[in-house]
Amino acid sequence: MKLTYLILFSLVAAFSHASDPSQLQDFCVADRNSPIVVNGKVCKNPMMAKPEDFFFSGLDKPGNTSNPLGSMVTAVNVQQIPGLNTLGISLARIDFAPWGLNPPHTHPRGTEILVVLEGCLYVGFVTSNPENRLFTKKLYKGDVFVFPQGLIHFQQNIGEEGAVAIAGLSSQNPGVVTIANAVFGAKPPISDDLLAKAFQVDKKVIDELQSAFWMDNNN
Amino acid sequence: MKLTYLILFSLVAAFSHASDPSQLQDFCVADRNSPIVVNGKVCKNPMMAKPEDFFFSGLDKPGNTSNPLGSMVTAVNVQQIPGLNTLGISLARIDFAPWGLNPPHTHPRGTEILVVLEGCLYVGFVTSNPENRLFTKKLYKGDVFVFPQGLIHFQQNIGEEGAVAIAGLSSQNPGVVTIANAVFGAKPPISDDLLAKAFQVDKKVIDELQSAFWMDNNN
Amino acid sequence: MKLTYLILFSLVAAFSHASDPSQLQDFCVADRNSPIVVNGKVCKNPMMAKPEDFFFSGLDKPGNTSNPLGSMVTAVNVQQIPGLNTLGISLARIDFAPWGLNPPHTHPRGTEILVVLEGCLYVGFVTSNPENRLFTKKLYKGDVFVFPQGLIHFQQNIGEEGAVAIAGLSSQNPGVVTIANAVFGAKPPISDDLLAKAFQVDKKVIDELQSAFWMDNNN
Amino acid sequence: MKLTYLILFSLVAAFSHASDPSQLQDFCVADRNSPIVVNGKVCKNPMMAKPEDFFFSGLDKPGNTSNPLGSMVTAVNVQQIPGLNTLGISLARIDFAPWGLNPPHTHPRGTEILVVLEGCLYVGFVTSNPENRLFTKKLYKGDVFVFPQGLIHFQQNIGEEGAVAIAGLSSQNPGVVTIANAVFGAKPPISDDLLAKAFQVDKKVIDELQSAFWMDNNN
Amino acid sequence: MKLTYLILFSLVAAFSHASDPSQLQDFCVADRNSPIVVNGKVCKNPMMAKPEDFFFSGLDKPGNTSNPLGSMVTAVNVQQIPGLNTLGISLARIDFAPWGLNPPHTHPRGTEILVVLEGCLYVGFVTSNPENRLFTKKLYKGDVFVFPQGLIHFQQNIGEEGAVAIAGLSSQNPGVVTIANAVFGAKPPISDDLLAKAFQVDKKVIDELQSAFWMDNNN
Amino acid sequence: MKLTYLILFSLVAAFSHASDPSQLQDFCVADRNSPIVVNGKVCKNPMMAKPEDFFFSGLDKPGNTSNPLGSMVTAVNVQQIPGLNTLGISLARIDFAPWGLNPPHTHPRGTEILVVLEGCLYVGFVTSNPENRLFTKKLYKGDVFVFPQGLIHFQQNIGEEGAVAIAGLSSQNPGVVTIANAVFGAKPPISDDLLAKAFQVDKKVIDELQSAFWMDNNN
Repeated sequence: MKLTYLILFSLVAAFSHASDPSQLQDFCVADRNSPIVVNGKVCKNPMMAKPEDFFFSGLDKPGNTSNPLGSMVTAVNVQQIPGLNTLGISLARIDFAPWGLNPPHTHPRGTEILVVLEGCLYVGFVTSNPENRLFTKKLYKGDVFVFPQGLIHFQQNIGEEGAVAIAGLSSQNPGVVTIANAVFGAKPPISDDLLAKAFQVDKKVIDELQSAFWMDNNN
Repeated sequence: MKLTYLILFSLVAAFSHASDPSQLQDFCVADRNSPIVVNGKVCKNPMMAKPEDFFFSGLDKPGNTSNPLGSMVTAVNVQQIPGLNTLGISLARIDFAPWGLNPPHTHPRGTEILVVLEGCLYVGFVTSNPENRLFTKKLYKGDVFVFPQGLIHFQQNIGEEGAVAIAGLSSQNPGVVTIANAVFGAKPPISDDLLAKAFQVDKKVIDELQSAFWMDNNN
Repeated sequence: MKLTYLILFSLVAAFSHASDPSQLQDFCVADRNSPIVVNGKVCKNPMMAKPEDFFFSGLDKPGNTSNPLGSMVTAVNVQQIPGLNTLGISLARIDFAPWGLNPPHTHPRGTEILVVLEGCLYVGFVTSNPENRLFTKKLYKGDVFVFPQGLIHFQQNIGEEGAVAIAGLSSQNPGVVTIANAVFGAKPPISDDLLAKAFQVDKKVIDELQSAFWMDNNN
Repeated sequence: MKLTYLILFSLVAAFSHASDPSQLQDFCVADRNSPIVVNGKVCKNPMMAKPEDFFFSGLDKPGNTSNPLGSMVTAVNVQQIPGLNTLGISLARIDFAPWGLNPPHTHPRGTEILVVLEGCLYVGFVTSNPENRLFTKKLYKGDVFVFPQGLIHFQQNIGEEGAVAIAGLSSQNPGVVTIANAVFGAKPPISDDLLAKAFQVDKKVIDELQSAFWMDNNN
Repeated sequence: MKLTYLILFSLVAAFSHASDPSQLQDFCVADRNSPIVVNGKVCKNPMMAKPEDFFFSGLDKPGNTSNPLGSMVTAVNVQQIPGLNTLGISLARIDFAPWGLNPPHTHPRGTEILVVLEGCLYVGFVTSNPENRLFTKKLYKGDVFVFPQGLIHFQQNIGEEGAVAIAGLSSQNPGVVTIANAVFGAKPPISDDLLAKAFQVDKKVIDELQSAFWMDNNN
Repeated sequence: MKLTYLILFSLVAAFSHASDPSQLQDFCVADRNSPIVVNGKVCKNPMMAKPEDFFFSGLDKPGNTSNPLGSMVTAVNVQQIPGLNTLGISLARIDFAPWGLNPPHTHPRGTEILVVLEGCLYVGFVTSNPENRLFTKKLYKGDVFVFPQGLIHFQQNIGEEGAVAIAGLSSQNPGVVTIANAVFGAKPPISDDLLAKAFQVDKKVIDELQSAFWMDNNN
């Protein structure tokens, strides 16, 4: 996450999911100091909750897109707002340099609904097997598009100006799996023999893919 | 909805909910022509789905706030985007005239996460019985705030300029219950005797409340 | 909660909700001594569970209705029965003095199904925006009525005798938001300027509403 | 159900379950005339909904307990109240003759919370394998007890007077599996060889069990 | 569980359930050393997770079927694989001696899908009240059958050779309620008077059933 | 699916998910003849259900692995067994030729638990951003491994003999997204310019990847 100047992203951006477990009280603010780990987060004493627990500042700040992908995702989920714990939703801001790309990725735990604030984006998602149909659309300022949970999708700025979008996601922690990072940048790496067979190409092609400088365009 | 020139709004604005039922296929685009009613929506043949089913245009257009409340909510949920069916999320844009108010309301089926695009908002929510604690915050451009599912909340522009916010909600159809409309503008009306007892005031006070021109600030 | 002679109401009474998270073991009895807070409750060692953990006594006792509303709700949820934790249901008894009122309220996390044991009740709920349709019914002994999750509803005794009802609710902790208390009795108060605009009345009307002595009719 | 004069019992009575799917609109009243079958029920046009759709009458009427078990369960679920569809809760009334028994049964889709209105009941449930611990309690008027989803449980009147209870259940259709009926009264019967092995007794014992006149104490 | 030489059987075997709560992170490996009890399991630090947390060995080993039922169930759920916590699924292997029986049982929290690896099984389930219809099928190698959540079901080897099946279950901890064990082998026992009335037979029949040596065929 | 002689697959194989919506009746057998589309499947009249609706035959038959990947997945989900509708689980068999590979893929709606019946598999999954940790394990006959919902995973036969595995999945229709197929074989294709930027390689590398003969190893 502490990626410095060539980050990327992928997409914690915008994802949302229909099925976080329901809340069993008004709220359950995540206790960042607790060492106990549960499904979601352990909470602080509700009498200690304060307005700041439901607050985040800075989504007006452009993300730094000076990286090879030319994009940056700023996530606002339960990590940033502890009051989101148990509430099944989150947000993200995505910045794009001219021609910047939020590369193909999935959200394992959420659907994404995105609205363009500035610029022009070319977006798409691919359905699951066996069809693998590509759905695409050019989006302009004020346009909204939906990326169903778990499907591979992407967004690219197709204009000469910067672009900005806001996305809502249907989980407090939808997760992001950037395909390039997870397949070719896993730690330790997946063997090039295995990937050469998976992608039906020569091992040198895989080596080239694995030697790309993998980065994460989440802020 | 056919409110003409004095609209209002309140709140399809921002609401989100942790528990829409999960999807059982990639997507299930609502079929607007089907006479069959189910929990959610009947869907069209998935082979007939097209990018436009996941698309909405016009969220860059300011809502008309020239109404007594000085606010307007433009919802983008399963009514506007049939592809949102089964996917558990929606969006809204809220416009505020100077001092405009999105009055106290609840979302029966969703939590709301709101980001301020322009202006300065005073926002708040009230916890359930018996505490009824008021949580408030002043929000500036780029600030984000969360309104937990089912709690009464409001947003007011406290600046001399217009204000704009985008909200994500955790349901494809979170619903909005504007308190003033539902209590004092129900059709047919709740009896003033009953309400006078409920609010522990004279019946004339209730009559005055019921004679206000009730409107709905949803677009 | 221990409000004695000035009233209450509202109704944590009986409400229930379709979506508490499912249980992952036979039971998970809430541990009242644990300082740890999670979604729902931390549990005691299951080998220490005993029949009393699933038991509550006293629902045959009339609630004290000598308060301005003339009603009293006695809740039996996870606070009263620790064994209800993870099980998605609760009960309540509601007592009404002659003309007593359980005033307009919502259950943010539950639907309510009510059966009249004694007396005659006038009950109703109001649908969400934009219709705000009022559904009402007179209920006599043995009649059952349903109040859908999150909608504003009320019950009034319209007889000269006391009335009693039992309600089931679809959550271990459905919550109660009494409209009068949450809007006009929040702590600290919502500003009268804001409320005057929300309800489109003079600020003096709001001041009168806020000066009512706000109480909670939960036992 | 078409049991004529010796009814039985068991218990559609009181059961409740933490996980019906959430509602996606204010309500979705079951359309009893639709030939279409879905998970839950197809709904009528919401504009056609009326108060009677949320209403049931007659739970003050004692069930007919003049049957070998001496008990009768009167269910009030989505079959009786179409408005319960999508709302995750139901009720039941259970009548007991002196020494009447609601025999061991499970609710496959719901937890039950029961309150005694009249009489004295001996109730119990058994935990799952491998412990099979029996939890029991004597309940008097006003006592409440919980039977967790899916566990075998029973209620017996241990007094010389009739007894009455009301139960809430955590599903719109929790289901009832009376052990005696399902194991020894299945249609067609389970073979006595198989059951003799299952219960480790002589086949004559099974034959005797299967020759009992199996009945259903649901009204 | 520590049943020595006369075994048990039946069914932790195969059960599965549509509704474990959703995961809120990639995984949440159960921490076997934590004294804290929640719905599901408390988790270890995710940075400490290792491949072995998602692993179990030995499902190729035949279970010991030398017991009166002639069957043995080897469960692989969250008890055996801590990494299954929050993930809503489990497995089991069931071994059958010739004519061995996995006796009637339910899974309170899961549906089961079973595939026969070796041998020939006669399987069945019984629907809930009032129909109690018996659905049966003879299964051969490679056949698959489904047992819906909460319904009583059984499997018997009807060949002279051993039989083996693998079952998938829809919960991390679906639970098993063997009817014979829970009804006639509860600890302490359910009274024979109560059971004689429940099963409409002489108390001696019940005494005989209760004197069978109850065992649990789970490994 | 109409892949002729060089198949592949990926893995509808084994995947399972914690959150299909709960069932609201004993079962709801999918009606294959209905033109109506809902979340999941419309059901046939329950009185018409028969044992065959819960049955599938042929999982003992090896899949045809004579394709470039050397693997074949035979799925048994709601498409093959209509009785699985609403029940939240499915199965798959996966066959591997020597060195055969079930290539990197995700299940958007399910966790997978796999057991090896024959042979030796090298398996792995990669966590989400930003860590992208690779978890791997060599599995032998009788070993079990878990692949959490939504994470990229693979299985490869690392022996000179064929290998066979059975997998359970936590949804009636978990879906499969084979990375190679969805990214490089989408129909219509994703532009090579976009993919070159996404994977930070020369466009010729992408062209080579896109020219591989994309196939689906689902039966």
